[in-house]
Amino acid sequence: MSKTIIHRVAVTFGDCDPAGIVFFPNFSRWMDAASHNYFMQCGLPPWHSMAELPGCIGCPLLEIHTRFVTSATYGEHLDIETQVEEWRGKVFVQRHRVMRGDTLICEGRETRALCVKQESGRLKAIPVPQFILDACA
Amino acid sequence: MSKTIIHRVAVTFGDCDPAGIVFFPNFSRWMDAASHNYFMQCGLPPWHSMAELPGCIGCPLLEIHTRFVTSATYGEHLDIETQVEEWRGKVFVQRHRVMRGDTLICEGRETRALCVKQESGRLKAIPVPQFILDACA
Amino acid sequence: MSKTIIHRVAVTFGDCDPAGIVFFPNFSRWMDAASHNYFMQCGLPPWHSMAELPGCIGCPLLEIHTRFVTSATYGEHLDIETQVEEWRGKVFVQRHRVMRGDTLICEGRETRALCVKQESGRLKAIPVPQFILDACA
Amino acid sequence: MSKTIIHRVAVTFGDCDPAGIVFFPNFSRWMDAASHNYFMQCGLPPWHSMAELPGCIGCPLLEIHTRFVTSATYGEHLDIETQVEEWRGKVFVQRHRVMRGDTLICEGRETRALCVKQESGRLKAIPVPQFILDACA
Repeated sequence: MSKTIIHRVAVTFGDCDPAGIVFFPNFSRWMDAASHNYFMQCGLPPWHSMAELPGCIGCPLLEIHTRFVTSATYGEHLDIETQVEEWRGKVFVQRHRVMRGDTLICEGRETRALCVKQESGRLKAIPVPQFILDACA
Repeated sequence: MSKTIIHRVAVTFGDCDPAGIVFFPNFSRWMDAASHNYFMQCGLPPWHSMAELPGCIGCPLLEIHTRFVTSATYGEHLDIETQVEEWRGKVFVQRHRVMRGDTLICEGRETRALCVKQESGRLKAIPVPQFILDACA
Repeated sequence: MSKTIIHRVAVTFGDCDPAGIVFFPNFSRWMDAASHNYFMQCGLPPWHSMAELPGCIGCPLLEIHTRFVTSATYGEHLDIETQVEEWRGKVFVQRHRVMRGDTLICEGRETRALCVKQESGRLKAIPVPQFILDACA
Repeated sequence: MSKTIIHRVAVTFGDCDPAGIVFFPNFSRWMDAASHNYFMQCGLPPWHSMAELPGCIGCPLLEIHTRFVTSATYGEHLDIETQVEEWRGKVFVQRHRVMRGDTLICEGRETRALCVKQESGRLKAIPVPQFILDACA
């Protein structure tokens, strides 16, 4: 299993909908931020400036899946616990658990592919190199 | 199978990210709008003003799952084709296919529960009544 | 005075805040879309593909000013009436009136500069050329 | 002059547009969060739970004005310095300076009215009471 990194979010008034609770696409937005933050906190440079991976554009999403358990509202702080659940060659699965203290608010999985831009301009998925696996271990 | 309703979206500059493509949480935002639009186009009143369902607050999400096939960008028009794929007592699954002409951009499923607010203030899921099933058939 | 172009917006549940009304930054988002739409409807190509303006990156904002008159909510359609109020060399002011039927919801002014990217990579404001003035007249 | 309170924001990938810089309505979103945060940091309870102001719904915006000086991008941290610049009876002006270190990114002013909901359901602006002035002094 990989490292777990925690990303804290303060829920604002504008993140909430007329029901007074977080409008759910904001959870996807925060999980995306948690995904970026994860690799930085593991000591890796931003994707587009990785000397070892020329042309790297990052890790586009192939799939997301989120299960909503209970709601959150403004004034609250949420902690997003992020791990890489599975490395699968060119693809990996990140799991995000959004917590308010000990309460699970929602849990999401993002399936992403590591991509570089080829000379033709087209994107190509490449195997996740060992130094990235090591940084997250 | 239920009716299919189409909801059109114009992608704007601000919907796109530094990669120049739609930032994915916007697809969730548009699918939510398509879900609301679906029942209205089927001839039903808004959830909170359904005389037959006093206290109805709508259909909170239990789960979302989205598969991303190709990207979209600003200046494009997308058509979201929405159906109810499954009625399951108090719960139902809506499927949204986001199309650019004949090209599938992404496909999402939302699992929702029909809820009313009880006198205690707590939400309670209730079986989807026949008149709603009929309106969508 | 320039042409007036109307850009229609359907307000969704997710555009609204816990007070049940449009969260105000969404008005800025819609005015930006109306600004882009304005020049297209005047028959001009998108900024970044204007053959007559190589390196054009569009019209970054220098200033916005919005006056809020009354609120709007989901289920409503708003019409944004956009004009260029003033051409001032390299800079111009667009005025957006957000209407619900005959009711003014809010009124915004955006001050923008027409910019090209120089070989050095730096942006440079340039005088708005006559063919753009003509297209909007 | 009032207290100055600082609200820190981490700019994410999804906050930025295809030009690679913060999409400007996000600045309004952050200034709104900074406005809420301001009064909390001054030791006041949230608007809707102020025992001294029954029916208080907060401070709807009458007007915003923002001047953009330079751009910001993802990976950066911004500090929003917020003050009340002017108390004007029922209305007040908050000033937000968005800083990246010593660099001013943009500066915004929000004009707000303190409002309570009347029995009729209509909003009514009321004079800002002394204990709020004192808390912010």
